[in-house]
Formats: sequence, structure tokens, C-alpha cells
Amino acid sequence: MKFTMKRTVFMTHLSHVTRAVPSKTTIDILKGIKLEVQSDKLILIGSNSDISIESVLLSSDEMNELNIEATGSVILPARLINDIVRKLPTNTIEIEVDSQYLIIVKSGKAVFKIIGGDASTYPQLPIIESNVSATFSTTVFNQMIAQTIFSASNQETRPVLTGIHLTNHGDYLSAVASDSHRLSKREIPFPEGQQALPFESIDVPKKTMLELMRIAEDEQTLSMVVAEQQVIFSLDGITIYSRLLEGIFPDAERLIPTHFISEITLNASQFLNSIDRTSLLSTGTHKTVQMIVGNNTVNLFVKGNEVGMVAEEIEVKQIEGEEIKVSFNAEYMKDALKSFEDADVKIQLQSAARPFVIQLATPSELENNNLLQLLTPIRTHG
Amino acid sequence: MKFTMKRTVFMTHLSHVTRAVPSKTTIDILKGIKLEVQSDKLILIGSNSDISIESVLLSSDEMNELNIEATGSVILPARLINDIVRKLPTNTIEIEVDSQYLIIVKSGKAVFKIIGGDASTYPQLPIIESNVSATFSTTVFNQMIAQTIFSASNQETRPVLTGIHLTNHGDYLSAVASDSHRLSKREIPFPEGQQALPFESIDVPKKTMLELMRIAEDEQTLSMVVAEQQVIFSLDGITIYSRLLEGIFPDAERLIPTHFISEITLNASQFLNSIDRTSLLSTGTHKTVQMIVGNNTVNLFVKGNEVGMVAEEIEVKQIEGEEIKVSFNAEYMKDALKSFEDADVKIQLQSAARPFVIQLATPSELENNNLLQLLTPIRTHG
Repeated sequence: MKFTMKRTVFMTHLSHVTRAVPSKTTIDILKGIKLEVQSDKLILIGSNSDISIESVLLSSDEMNELNIEATGSVILPARLINDIVRKLPTNTIEIEVDSQYLIIVKSGKAVFKIIGGDASTYPQLPIIESNVSATFSTTVFNQMIAQTIFSASNQETRPVLTGIHLTNHGDYLSAVASDSHRLSKREIPFPEGQQALPFESIDVPKKTMLELMRIAEDEQTLSMVVAEQQVIFSLDGITIYSRLLEGIFPDAERLIPTHFISEITLNASQFLNSIDRTSLLSTGTHKTVQMIVGNNTVNLFVKGNEVGMVAEEIEVKQIEGEEIKVSFNAEYMKDALKSFEDADVKIQLQSAARPFVIQLATPSELENNNLLQLLTPIRTHG
Repeated sequence: MKFTMKRTVFMTHLSHVTRAVPSKTTIDILKGIKLEVQSDKLILIGSNSDISIESVLLSSDEMNELNIEATGSVILPARLINDIVRKLPTNTIEIEVDSQYLIIVKSGKAVFKIIGGDASTYPQLPIIESNVSATFSTTVFNQMIAQTIFSASNQETRPVLTGIHLTNHGDYLSAVASDSHRLSKREIPFPEGQQALPFESIDVPKKTMLELMRIAEDEQTLSMVVAEQQVIFSLDGITIYSRLLEGIFPDAERLIPTHFISEITLNASQFLNSIDRTSLLSTGTHKTVQMIVGNNTVNLFVKGNEVGMVAEEIEVKQIEGEEIKVSFNAEYMKDALKSFEDADVKIQLQSAARPFVIQLATPSELENNNLLQLLTPIRTHG
């Protein structure tokens, strides 16, 4: 193998595929990145066996400044090669590999000779049987992930809750995440004329969604293929292969209440700041804040016991329904509010003990483009 | 006590004095900040008993928007009050303290009631007997600290080596730091007409110098007073009181060699990048890099054993003297080179085992304005 190319392009793609490389693993080969050079392209693959990321760089793309002199394949030591490529002195990199898998990296007057590995021992990428794909704008898809992923569970006791549950509704896709204390749901419409996707619902691991979010830039085109136990996301030369989670995800429609006794309307980011502030006095593991909805006012209240106490009257646009007191986990509430950015939201309450719901005060003009956050209150005494 | 003032100003001064507050301490009172309100000013003090930082805010300074209604003093819980002040909703803060040390903090519609403490139990600031002070530009003084402090030791076994040794040479001040493997020395001239300072040499703890560097902005005027076992730095309403280190600091003039067999001249930042790169292949606790000075070339070399190896020819402006090989700790060399920024430097060598010296290739036009870095080589086999 021998090629030269633009160092910064190689560096970017190397860092993308390295995201799948596990920091700790007992399987030595997975500490490496597979580099395969064909006559017209270069393929990089990183994998932790659950998620694989593949990047393809074409010599026909002039941006790559890719010049292939000899084909071949090798395993690169992932962390070391990233560090080296980042620190090389010129913007051209030359890589040559001999028959003993010795990798010679040259740039300017620096010559590295790195011990590589036999690429034939690297795990194979899954073979995709479906060829029906859906396409999305990465901007919308990333937003959908960001608005739901924080509600996914970190507990491995119910693996299905550690992912995002995607449901195919024909006209639109919904994403739901829940750790059983809270639930986030975002819907996005399929682009017009989209071919029907051959799945009902899938559960994508949180890590897959996070890596996708990090790799995808705004306004790229994302394609999604669902195959047996696999989902494949592709964008701009990069493909993420991920296994799916197994198990039965709770039915969001049954969990989301529809009847409420009170509703308040307020600005999400102002309310977030108030909670951020008042929760400073919350002691204990759960940062609990109490919200007191009166006839004309809404107040936040925290009794910090040995520290002191705080009270703040909240600016509200509208209050409807009954007076009610409810306590919640401030961190969960902040996560939920952040997903609405600076918009006005309505908070709909049932009782001090039953879940409340947050939605946009003014629904989206676009159909099937809703965002909903649900939180279970914390029961307090007095 | 009762006053209102501009929140952002209070926040800045609070965070300055909090720098002296220890994160862990068995002395409860030191977890607090002393706030004293007099008829015309407000005084904040934080202390870890070795270092105390005092900040004075005058009501005559219109920038402070300080309006004092009642005098008094209190101990504020340091971390909590910083967090609260940072997150308050408006740019005006009102603080009121009752006779039971309950602190009422108001801003907008937020009302915090925090339990404070009796300020009379707070340690007294040292009383300064000397009134002879030297003044410096903070820009120059900060540079002097930054160019030497990294060589100060982290080992408490010889406490005097954990500080910066300042020597009063009459016309100029020198700062020396050394962990016995390396030594940094920077001289700065006293401003013209400066009154002679009443000390020969003092050893200032590293932490004091770090805090001074963080608080001092560029182009402020710094005043230094040396008293019995204390140094006091003042700038713009802020005063840092620090105890001095005890012990006998090694004589830098005896440690710095004056006869060399080889000298190379090169650009400090280019050389730093080469070391940064080649040291990637150094394994083991000390990141060792070998420098091979030939007749016409200088090469860096690292044999990383199981990883691979790297060689790089270095761009040099001049080589004089004998051929020589020397190995050094890459991290120490990078620290030393960084202090010269992008300047050309000369490296003067004695032998593979004895210290080498780095200085500016073109000496400063200003007298007594020198910077010198000394490094002890690492002995290697072969």
C-alpha cells in the first residue's frame, strides 16, 4: 500500500471512524482502525462490534488530493495514528505499508515507522439486505435526537430503555426516550414522496445516536436503512452500522395523560434560569424544587434546611385551572425545558403525584412535527 | 448591614477573593468569605491562612453602583454565594444581613435567605510593617512568573523548591524556579527611580504566584511590599497577602554552566512542534527524546520499541562546535521552549550527561531582561 493525500481530510475521517473504537476492550484487533486502499478509493473502518463506522474517500474527489500508488490493507493503531496525523508538520501525508505491516508515515522531514496489523483478521461489516432507505435533513434528525436522548436510561437493567425508540407512522417518524421517570417524544414528518419504510419500530442504542449527532453536520442529507437487527445511517461518505436493542418499549401513547386540571404558559428559557437559580439551595441527591401554582401567580420554592431557603415569583403568560403544588427534579426539568430553547411552552398538570406534560404553547405549523416532554413529580412531605 | 450594587462587579471581586478559599479544610470558618461594609466601602476577604486575598470596593467609584444603607459584617458561605450571584436575574443585587447573620439576597423577584456566620471569628489579616514598595507592570511581572513557575517543584520534601525565588539585585529583580532537574531564570529591570527594596531574597509559594497571575490583568500597576515572613501584592483594589517559604534556595549562579562544546540556533516554536510530534512514540514514564547534533544537521530520534520508531531532521539556523548526542525529558523541553514563544533560541551543550542551557539567540535590548532555561539530560543506554 502506498498513497499520499491531504492531511487535514485524512485527519477528519480518521477521527470520525475512531469514535466507534472502544477505549477499553479485551479484543486487541478492535483497538485498531482498518485501512483499505483500492485502486480508486480509501476505506477506513472503526468498530466496537456493536457500532461500526466506515468512511470512504474517493480519489475522484479533488478535495481529498488523494494519489494512490499501491493498493493494500492494514490495521492502524487507532489512538496513536490520530495523534501522529494531528501533529504532522505539513498538509500532505504519505503512508506506505510493507509486507510485514510496518506503516511508514511521512510528512515534511518527519518519518514515523509504526507497527501495524493484518487487516484480514478485522471483523466484517454487516451485510445489508434491505435497499429501501428514508432520507432526512441532518438538521431535523439531529434536533430530534437532541430533544429526546437525555431521557434515555443509563441503567442496563432494562436495555431497551437505554435507546431511542423510533416508530414508523407512515407519514411521519416518532422518537421516544424514557427512563420511566420522564419521557421525551419528538415527531418529524417524512419528506414528501418518501417510499414506505419496511419497519414498524426499532430501538437504536443511545451511543449510536450520539455518534451520529457528532458526525453529522447541519444541512447534510442523511439516509436510513433498517435491516434485520441493524440500522444503517449514511451521510457524505460516512456510514454508521449499528445493532438494534431488543425488548419491548413501553407504549408512549398510554403513558401520556390527556386530561389536566391546570395549565400555565411561560417562556421556557426564563423558567429554566429560575429553576437553575432556586435549585442551588436544593440539598440531597435529587435537586428538588417545589412549584406553587396559585390563582394569579406561580412561585418556586426550595427549603434548603441548614443552608437557607429561596423563593421566586415566576413570570407567566397565562394561568388556567385549579391551584396546585408540585415538586420535581430540577435537573430533569432543566433538560426538558432546554429542548424548547427560547419558545413559550404550556405546562399541563394533573395532580401533585401524577405526570405533567410540557409542550409548545403555539403548535408547529408543520404537521406531525410535535415535541412533548413528560415528567413524574417527586412526592414531598408538607 | 444593607447595600445594593452592580451584580457583575460584586461577582468579579467575589470570585477573586474566593481563589484563596481552600476547597478542603477542617477549619469551618475558612470555607467562608468575610464581607465587611463600612460607611464608604465594602471589603471582601478570602483566606486559606497561608494566602489571603482582600478586595476593596469604594462607593465613590461610580462603576460599582454601590449604595450603602447600613454597615456591618458577616461570613458568607463562599461557594454558594458565588453560585447564587452568578445566576441572579438582574444586574442589581441587594444584600441585607440581620442580627442573627441571616443573609437576604434579592435580585429581581428572587429572594434567597442564606445562613451566614459571625465575622468577628474570622482570622485577622497580617499587619504590614514595611511601607517601601516596588511597582511593576503586571504584563512584565506575569510574564516573569509564567516563564519560570513550571520549573518549581511539586514535591513537598524540600518546601523551598515549591516556590519562586526572587532576588533583589538593586537595579533588577531575578526570579528563579527549580525542581533540581531543571531551572528557569528570568530577570526584569526595576522601573527607573525605584526606591531600594529592603530585602535580599524571598521565596514566594507557587500558589501565590498563580493566583496573582490569574487576578492581574495586562497593563495594570502591581505594587510589592516585603515584610517579615510576608509578601504583599496590590493592584486595583485587590491585595494578596502571602506567607513566604522557609529554607535555603540553591545558588542559581553556581548551577548555570558557562563553558560549552556545542551550540545550535533554531526557532523555539518549530522545535517545540517537532518534539511534541516525535515524543508521541516515547513509551515509559519519562517521555524521552534523543537529539543528535551532527556536523550539518540536527535530528530527533525516538525508538518506541513495541510501537515503532520516529526520526525527524530539524531545521536549524546555525550549528557550532562538536558533534553530540543528548536525551531529554520531552515535557520539560516543551515547557522550556514555550517560554520563548516564537523567538529564535540558542541551545548550549556541555556533554551527554551535564545540563544544557537555552537562551534567546538575540539578547534583549533592555538591560537585565534575560530569560534562561536549564535542563539536565536523561542518561540512556546506547
